[in-house]
Amino acid sequence: MVASAFLPELWTEILIPVCAVVGIVFSLFQWFIVSRVKVSGDQGASSSSGGAKNGYGDYLIEEEEGVNDQSVVAKCAEIQTAISEGATSFLFTEYQYVGVFMVFFAAIIFVFLGSVEGFSTESKPCTYDSTKTCKPALATAAFSTIAFILGAVTSVLSGFLGMKIATYANARTTLEARKSVGKAFIVAFRSGAVMGFLLAASGLLVLYITINVFKIYYGDDWEGLFEAITGYGLGGSSMALFGRVGGGIYTKAADVGADLVGKIERNIPEDDPRNPAVIADNVGDNVGDIAGMGSDLFGSYAEASCAALVVASISSFGINHDFTAMCYPLLISSMGILVCLITTLFATDFFEIKAVKEIEPALKNQLIISTAIMTVGIAVVSWVGLPSSFTIFNFGTQKVVQNWQLFLCVCVGLWAGLIIGFVTEYYTSNAYSPVQDVADSCRTGAATNVIFGLALGYKSVIIPIFAIAISIFVSFSFAAMYGVAVAALGMLSTIATGLAIDAYGPISDNAGGIAEMAGMSHRIRERTDALDAAGNTTAAIGKGFAIGSAALVSLALFGAFVSRAGVHTVDVLTPKVIIGLLVGAMLPYWFSAMTMKSVGSAALKMVEEVRRQFNTIPGLMEGTAKPDYATCVKISTDASIKEMIPPGCLVMLTPLIVGFFFGVETLSGVLAGSLVSGVQIAISASNTGGAWDNAKKYIEAGVSEHAKSLGPKGSEPHKAAVIGDTIGDPLKDTSGPSLNILIKLMAVESLVFAPFFATHGGILFKYL
Amino acid sequence: MVASAFLPELWTEILIPVCAVVGIVFSLFQWFIVSRVKVSGDQGASSSSGGAKNGYGDYLIEEEEGVNDQSVVAKCAEIQTAISEGATSFLFTEYQYVGVFMVFFAAIIFVFLGSVEGFSTESKPCTYDSTKTCKPALATAAFSTIAFILGAVTSVLSGFLGMKIATYANARTTLEARKSVGKAFIVAFRSGAVMGFLLAASGLLVLYITINVFKIYYGDDWEGLFEAITGYGLGGSSMALFGRVGGGIYTKAADVGADLVGKIERNIPEDDPRNPAVIADNVGDNVGDIAGMGSDLFGSYAEASCAALVVASISSFGINHDFTAMCYPLLISSMGILVCLITTLFATDFFEIKAVKEIEPALKNQLIISTAIMTVGIAVVSWVGLPSSFTIFNFGTQKVVQNWQLFLCVCVGLWAGLIIGFVTEYYTSNAYSPVQDVADSCRTGAATNVIFGLALGYKSVIIPIFAIAISIFVSFSFAAMYGVAVAALGMLSTIATGLAIDAYGPISDNAGGIAEMAGMSHRIRERTDALDAAGNTTAAIGKGFAIGSAALVSLALFGAFVSRAGVHTVDVLTPKVIIGLLVGAMLPYWFSAMTMKSVGSAALKMVEEVRRQFNTIPGLMEGTAKPDYATCVKISTDASIKEMIPPGCLVMLTPLIVGFFFGVETLSGVLAGSLVSGVQIAISASNTGGAWDNAKKYIEAGVSEHAKSLGPKGSEPHKAAVIGDTIGDPLKDTSGPSLNILIKLMAVESLVFAPFFATHGGILFKYL
Repeated sequence: MVASAFLPELWTEILIPVCAVVGIVFSLFQWFIVSRVKVSGDQGASSSSGGAKNGYGDYLIEEEEGVNDQSVVAKCAEIQTAISEGATSFLFTEYQYVGVFMVFFAAIIFVFLGSVEGFSTESKPCTYDSTKTCKPALATAAFSTIAFILGAVTSVLSGFLGMKIATYANARTTLEARKSVGKAFIVAFRSGAVMGFLLAASGLLVLYITINVFKIYYGDDWEGLFEAITGYGLGGSSMALFGRVGGGIYTKAADVGADLVGKIERNIPEDDPRNPAVIADNVGDNVGDIAGMGSDLFGSYAEASCAALVVASISSFGINHDFTAMCYPLLISSMGILVCLITTLFATDFFEIKAVKEIEPALKNQLIISTAIMTVGIAVVSWVGLPSSFTIFNFGTQKVVQNWQLFLCVCVGLWAGLIIGFVTEYYTSNAYSPVQDVADSCRTGAATNVIFGLALGYKSVIIPIFAIAISIFVSFSFAAMYGVAVAALGMLSTIATGLAIDAYGPISDNAGGIAEMAGMSHRIRERTDALDAAGNTTAAIGKGFAIGSAALVSLALFGAFVSRAGVHTVDVLTPKVIIGLLVGAMLPYWFSAMTMKSVGSAALKMVEEVRRQFNTIPGLMEGTAKPDYATCVKISTDASIKEMIPPGCLVMLTPLIVGFFFGVETLSGVLAGSLVSGVQIAISASNTGGAWDNAKKYIEAGVSEHAKSLGPKGSEPHKAAVIGDTIGDPLKDTSGPSLNILIKLMAVESLVFAPFFATHGGILFKYL
Repeated sequence: MVASAFLPELWTEILIPVCAVVGIVFSLFQWFIVSRVKVSGDQGASSSSGGAKNGYGDYLIEEEEGVNDQSVVAKCAEIQTAISEGATSFLFTEYQYVGVFMVFFAAIIFVFLGSVEGFSTESKPCTYDSTKTCKPALATAAFSTIAFILGAVTSVLSGFLGMKIATYANARTTLEARKSVGKAFIVAFRSGAVMGFLLAASGLLVLYITINVFKIYYGDDWEGLFEAITGYGLGGSSMALFGRVGGGIYTKAADVGADLVGKIERNIPEDDPRNPAVIADNVGDNVGDIAGMGSDLFGSYAEASCAALVVASISSFGINHDFTAMCYPLLISSMGILVCLITTLFATDFFEIKAVKEIEPALKNQLIISTAIMTVGIAVVSWVGLPSSFTIFNFGTQKVVQNWQLFLCVCVGLWAGLIIGFVTEYYTSNAYSPVQDVADSCRTGAATNVIFGLALGYKSVIIPIFAIAISIFVSFSFAAMYGVAVAALGMLSTIATGLAIDAYGPISDNAGGIAEMAGMSHRIRERTDALDAAGNTTAAIGKGFAIGSAALVSLALFGAFVSRAGVHTVDVLTPKVIIGLLVGAMLPYWFSAMTMKSVGSAALKMVEEVRRQFNTIPGLMEGTAKPDYATCVKISTDASIKEMIPPGCLVMLTPLIVGFFFGVETLSGVLAGSLVSGVQIAISASNTGGAWDNAKKYIEAGVSEHAKSLGPKGSEPHKAAVIGDTIGDPLKDTSGPSLNILIKLMAVESLVFAPFFATHGGILFKYL
């Protein structure tokens, strides 16, 4: 008999939901603070006492320059409404299509999994312990389907709420920028935190409730219970796929289209209200970078938890029914919420941002602080939540593991995330030499800029891959695939903070856009630009996290899949596996080809429309006539809905086709191949794009002597930098980040369908 | 007792060298025909009767336009000498550095392999048949070292002779272009054939002689004999690495530098003699595309043969000492020489090219004809050269194989090569929609051109990967790693034809350059341009072949490595293998980052020098002063020598470091990872670059209505196309093709050092 965890089951049952609720309350509290900044024009007029100063006694720089405060606020409110309506309308359209898919795919799950035992309603002996009786495959089919729907709905809600918060915060950030850069920063950051905490806490809460509800039916059959729970990860991730791809195409079609005509042909600034694609561009930031990113990280979190739970269910935790130890992954996430809560206070309450140069360090400190405190948190959870010694399922055998080993597994993931974050920052921030070299190469034109940028992206892969490899080696050696899963959870444990600093970026970007469109002074635009530049780097860091965790998550899911499918070795020296490996490594290229081409084609349409409006609407360039924003919004919406289907099908159908026709060995090869190849492309694409963006910003800002020698805006090197930035857009915001989902989603889908493939799969080889 | 092959040993001993000698004689005969075109100015003057018409009675278009024939011939001779001298001087410099490396690495091979049995001179029981006595490891060390040096020298000679032939043929092609496009084509094609046959035949002959000489010492110990022979592959491939990387950096630094200033800033045509980098550019074609390509394909051929031989030596062929069956790989290559000889006659003698539009079909027919005839040839060789049934070593067991199965293995490789060739053509020729779409995207500028081009490259990976995967599956299923090795040999069996049409490209490119520089009329330039455009596509096809064969070769070598290292499974579900896989998949990115950056930096230096000359040499733009070509040649030479060392070290040291510190399992992972990831990047990089190049040519040529709407030269879309072309240069001619060598070389190096790693490797895990 193995000892059970120190923490009693009852405490576990209480602690997890309490932490989740604390996270939600904290999130609502941040929202409340943000909401105290008034945007509506009426509001300012009615509360005449201090209304003009927006409830504060602070000095507003706008007043100094004689701009009427009330009209500015009204203008901001109007733009905010346009962006918010555009984003809401797009997400509703997207969700309609995705909803159809969801129903269809839920049916597939039910039918395929139900067919494993021929839709029998009889209980059967368990796979791993034949002395016990387990629930029938039909029950697993039904509950997997329910879990899938729950995961999908939670993911959709995460993305939608994130977008709502961001479009609520953007104009508020602009208005606060009139007071000081610090005040604007706080609004943007708090709004990011709203999203971060809401997502982390609700993901945890829904998962926790689902487990407890399913347990009522499953009782002691934890094997079946946690197998059904994997549907939650699949639901989360498949919504994330459409969110990322659809949102990514939307935002970049608008962005590229707006830039190509506005900046390059018409020579008008970014976010100029005369540009017809400007609203679509700002909507795009919210549906792509916010809603897409939210769904993506929620998916990673859900999948990592499912991978850990399903392996644990066939390890000593599950066999001995040690509920606290079983909930170790959820306890880590609970602790993560508390740690991130404390971390947030460092940015919002303990210190105050006074100058532009303090922004980036403040954001970076968030990462360091959360990682440092979380290390202690993991130690506590590992001490109270785990028995001192236990066994973990390791492809057919049980491996003995100590609790301190699991502590190290989680830590190695957590710290690898930090390293990946900082390496990403080094390669994408214009404070360091790599981006400065890329900027310098603009002297000889766009071609050398692109060559140097691509080389930078390729190079930036090296250290993150070593960090991931070391994490895998340590966690795999200590605790097999369970170790890898908890390492992924370690990396994702500070997700609330990660999302907060990540969402902060697009909010600042939007704030700048609103300032420009509302005709605010140059000084306000400078403040929001400073916020945005820092946001660019944090966005790159966030992508680094997303990719790193995706690599670990998909390996853990892959491990869980082979465990469930009853495969004991995946031998490269067999024809079935090696061809899978080769074809799997090709899939990220196929997928990227689709998404890049989609952005390109949609951008061409956008360019034509924008050109048409400039050519046919009299007075548009002079600012006397208003452009037709709605048509541009429609082009982006239509293109992204239409274009997200083929790459979506590629990812969703590949595991089904390979598993059904070629069997689990080839599918294992495909998963391993797409993992090792996809990670590289994802990292290099994100960093190349980020570097080009910041190289352009470096030239525009002209802070150093070197930067000044390349500028100003409109110079030949600047034009070359703009071309690089435009090429980088689909790389960093569409194809790159979508690849995370490709590798995770194929793995989790294989895991869910593992019993089906093990029973009915590989028909091609069976009959050949 | 298994039956032996139908063909008696004596016949085998005679047939192979005879075929090789036939190939060499045919090659010399082609050279003789080419040499009948006189280039030297004196020659034309002395033989006054028909000298002015170059020995022919044909009508020369130059005369019509009143240009003095003799001065044109003298000018061509002068330029040819400059190019030839530049190329020779670079190759000598390169070989000096490579020579130092060769000596150093030969010492490593000897010491490492000698240390396996502690430098003992005693014979020992054989690994696979302990009843017999095998030669000591020290002997294998010594003979491997000798084979390494022989392979290296043959590779260097192949590259050098190829370059000599190409620089001999370029001006002759120009001069023949005055008569007709058909005559020019024949000269360029015959010269390509000289190189193709010389290389294929000498590679075969040297290998054959080496085997027979080594056999005198080894006697019946075929295991040791063919283990030592693997050094031949390593030698060939390591020289190819430096040839490809060094030559690739050289040619692209010059090309990019020349284009950036000449075409974009100064608006002068390509190959304009006023451009100081123009000689360096033309030299580059010869050292990169000719010498580098020659070494590369020779390396593939040598490695595929070695991989097949080493596996055969521990299969029934080797165990039963069936020399004819053992020589099956060499018999295929012998047959290949004869088949290619017949194929060549179709282009040079059976049909005559009369119009520009016949060039591309003629070249494509070469591929189809050689593949069709070779299929019959393989059937013959398989029937007479193999026993009807035999066994092949399959990771610890012996697998029974029939001769028709091996026939299918070779065929599947051969036909996969053809498919890859045609897919490559589809994606890179401007006769089809993919390149036309890329050209069309230039309307909206360089950014969309790059986005579409990258997407095209990614997409072009799909079918080749399926073709390779099917070849691997069929050949692996039938005859394990021996099957994969002979599939690779099947793809390479038509190497003489492949190289002929491949070398034809740079020769035509140079011919165009010489026509421009010699001030020949526009019409001659048009003819050479037409030759060159077809050459661009065949170059892309050649790269497709090189990559496809590299994939099969490195898998075969990988299989031979694990066999020799005594590994029976390479299980992805172990931490040692998965981290190897992940890091291995990263290496092509690291390597590409290095080579791309090298080209970029060298090009920047070149740009500065070219700008400096335009700014400081009075009368340069007006054509009254001559530029300083030598300085540009020196910049390219210095940059490529300096920059080839880090990527060279990465490739050469990785297997040694991984094998020594982490052991054979991790090394297996690294090899598999770099294989599956490298193939994709190599194909996409080559095709993206080829597509951009031909999109630019499409706009320049303006053949269709669509093309005309994008042009002419100097229009905005054309400028965007030039930027794409420049970005593609390092992708298609430096980093892309070098990746073939990365994956092959790491595998063959691991194979050679396998006994060392198996004995002394993995020290990190041993002591941890």
